Amino acid sequence: MIEELRAALADRLGPEAVSTARADLAGYEQGARYGQGRAAMLIRPADTAGVAAAVRACRVAGLPIVPQGANTGLVAASTPDASGTQVVLSLERLRGPLEIDPLDRTALVGAGVRLSALNQALAPHGLCFPIDLGADPSIGGMIAANTGGARLIRHGDVRRNLLGLEVVLADGSVLDLLNRNRKNNTGIDLKQLFVGSSGALGIVTRAVVEVHPLPRQSATALLVPRAPGDVPRLIGDLEAALGDFLSACEGMSRNAMACALRHRPRLRNPFQGGLLPGYAVLIELAASCGPDVVDLQAMLENFLAPRLEDTLADAIFGRAEDLWALRHAISDSLKEEGKVIAFDIAMPRSALPAFRAAATADLARDWPWLRVCDFGHSGDGGDHFNLVWPHDAAEPFDPACVEPVRALVYDRVVRDHGGSFSAEHGVGPYNQAYYDRYTTPDRLALSGAVKQLLDPEGRLGVVRFGSPDTTDNGATP
Amino acid sequence: MIEELRAALADRLGPEAVSTARADLAGYEQGARYGQGRAAMLIRPADTAGVAAAVRACRVAGLPIVPQGANTGLVAASTPDASGTQVVLSLERLRGPLEIDPLDRTALVGAGVRLSALNQALAPHGLCFPIDLGADPSIGGMIAANTGGARLIRHGDVRRNLLGLEVVLADGSVLDLLNRNRKNNTGIDLKQLFVGSSGALGIVTRAVVEVHPLPRQSATALLVPRAPGDVPRLIGDLEAALGDFLSACEGMSRNAMACALRHRPRLRNPFQGGLLPGYAVLIELAASCGPDVVDLQAMLENFLAPRLEDTLADAIFGRAEDLWALRHAISDSLKEEGKVIAFDIAMPRSALPAFRAAATADLARDWPWLRVCDFGHSGDGGDHFNLVWPHDAAEPFDPACVEPVRALVYDRVVRDHGGSFSAEHGVGPYNQAYYDRYTTPDRLALSGAVKQLLDPEGRLGVVRFGSPDTTDNGATP
Repeated sequence: MIEELRAALADRLGPEAVSTARADLAGYEQGARYGQGRAAMLIRPADTAGVAAAVRACRVAGLPIVPQGANTGLVAASTPDASGTQVVLSLERLRGPLEIDPLDRTALVGAGVRLSALNQALAPHGLCFPIDLGADPSIGGMIAANTGGARLIRHGDVRRNLLGLEVVLADGSVLDLLNRNRKNNTGIDLKQLFVGSSGALGIVTRAVVEVHPLPRQSATALLVPRAPGDVPRLIGDLEAALGDFLSACEGMSRNAMACALRHRPRLRNPFQGGLLPGYAVLIELAASCGPDVVDLQAMLENFLAPRLEDTLADAIFGRAEDLWALRHAISDSLKEEGKVIAFDIAMPRSALPAFRAAATADLARDWPWLRVCDFGHSGDGGDHFNLVWPHDAAEPFDPACVEPVRALVYDRVVRDHGGSFSAEHGVGPYNQAYYDRYTTPDRLALSGAVKQLLDPEGRLGVVRFGSPDTTDNGATP
Repeated sequence: MIEELRAALADRLGPEAVSTARADLAGYEQGARYGQGRAAMLIRPADTAGVAAAVRACRVAGLPIVPQGANTGLVAASTPDASGTQVVLSLERLRGPLEIDPLDRTALVGAGVRLSALNQALAPHGLCFPIDLGADPSIGGMIAANTGGARLIRHGDVRRNLLGLEVVLADGSVLDLLNRNRKNNTGIDLKQLFVGSSGALGIVTRAVVEVHPLPRQSATALLVPRAPGDVPRLIGDLEAALGDFLSACEGMSRNAMACALRHRPRLRNPFQGGLLPGYAVLIELAASCGPDVVDLQAMLENFLAPRLEDTLADAIFGRAEDLWALRHAISDSLKEEGKVIAFDIAMPRSALPAFRAAATADLARDWPWLRVCDFGHSGDGGDHFNLVWPHDAAEPFDPACVEPVRALVYDRVVRDHGGSFSAEHGVGPYNQAYYDRYTTPDRLALSGAVKQLLDPEGRLGVVRFGSPDTTDNGATP
């Protein structure tokens, strides 16, 4: 049956669009961080009509579909499970259109267009799509995950910059919600359903996004607070004074910075005498006007100078690239230090210091060798509270610790602070169990009903939005 | 039966919460601009539990409910129809809580809190909720309409500033979607369904909104472009250069300004020799930093000076209050000039000049005495394309013209420019027929299904989101 479907789709979409060869499939079966399964088939249509045809054919054949963008997601939401029955529907060939309207500051983009490609096309117009991420995802995947990133404090998430969508639904029909208006309140805003829902309600094929003037200058500093508890107040003061320009506010713990410096010997250690502080905050101001109009660097220095008398132990004005290099090196370098248990949590930003202290103390009781190497978007309450089980720990890594550690951390985040167990990575098999645990029964019921409405046969995606007691699709919790 | 229900609810919610007396009901039966009906009963609960109890009681009694905030909406979505069978459920007493978290820049607000009251409470913290409107709506109503306003170009609409919601559903249950996180991607974002859906999917009782630093300075100018067609390019240039500060960009036609000046004799005419140009654009820059840090006035003057050589015929730096007074006087003064046919349209902003020219020419053919007195949010493509049939026209006002005039204008907006027939006022009985006409069958079907899911008995609100062939509630098209 698979072979029949392959042949029919090859006829319809071209032979380059379909494969069941193991070698072709391998790259689509393994996620960027989690997710490792086996696909029944790979389909790579080149346009919306092709996606719709593929969905209809899979429906007739009774096969579940895993939509996949650039496969850079971090919760295993775009890779097949181990059953070998799921079809990976890659959107990577949907690279057209890429139409930029500079006067309206909008772009119509195919789901397979990469963030970097969009920004490359926008740059000659003095514009950018200001979602700043470590990876280079496709626009469709960014919508399915509602990505955030380091400039969220200034520009918001993908949802905030999304004007219109085209979606292929589970029945293979094309729902046209494309819209180029900044304001359009003409009924239920259906496109919102597809944002951040991991491809389980529909497959994004095209989008209209709002784009923004490219910054023409920035000013960057690394701040060392006298106490981590001072950070929320510092951010508040910074916003009150210079909030028009604040474009990033990234916290880094000593452990995280130490790890980056240890495993990336070419990184410059920016601190006086190389002495790492307990916590540092990377601040960036950006403006679309030039330094002839506004001198951001002077502005930032003037703001920080009096604070060196009280809340700040130090303020370091290195080269922006050097300071960002330290921040960007953290995530990968942790892997070289040991086994990483990664988190993507958020809470009201004022709660971060208390949470960090309490969770660190909790963990130290049962796993004293676990190293808290957290870093992240302090300005918006985000924290990649990543833990490292060092390779050189007395105890060898015990995979059985992962679930109790995650439960401990998430419980503090969600129950103590009303925080989020997935701030910007979305929901996938990696955190399905926590979705099930922390989602209230009424939200589960309504989410399940929405899923049922849009995908009654449970054919799309690998996330189960309804109650774990029901099976609204083939996902395993 | 009504009397029985009244008595039971008076017992449960207090006698001040229920009335069937005509005198009490009158103010709730008449909309701010459109809508004039007759209610079976008025219920004014004081809290969420009271709203839930009222909804359950109405459900048992089989009575439809019209949720009403401050009743300032402009599409008749909060007033009962003429049947005398609908219950008005006013949220005006839900004034608690109003909890401000200055460090996190969030506020937890009861649905009945007025915009002005929220801003009054925020001001001592140096914060504001930056949705700038002519009216003083309640927060619940603002969410139900997804209001925009004059500062949308800077701060977005209500949706962009909404973090969490509490909603009473049609079955009388309370759905808790309260959330104080800036980032929280843990499943389908259900709260989005209730934003801009006119109270027809659920009744907002509390909300968490993101609030922003109060501007500490602004700079305002009235620009006279040499040709209206130059306006989009001018806005683009302004954004590229000073986009970090641009907080309003309001266009005004000569007819609109003339009408305001004629009927508001205390208004200052800001133009040289009092000569009104064909079109003028009110520009505002705002910043949360003081003039010691950034001098917005100088910045704006420097930007405009070279443009006086080419695209600009004039740039007037009057007192901000005077310039805004002219803008704000327009809407009401039109009524004194004649019978107004009001519009709330939007399109990509680059299309506005062509649309205005074409629609004006169209109208002149059949109704040469109709005066186009448009004004609005040019920066985001919004236009209140209001028409006046002057009291002193040769022909007396013919109400039969209204529908063909609306159809002509909306057709140009929607079909020629992919624009919106309701940019920021939402959908209500006033524009239900146009919702029916311009919403594609697949959107109608899915919207109807969402309505069916959340309100299967069609008990909430006065908008029909499904196909006009079905009756998903008591609304008349």
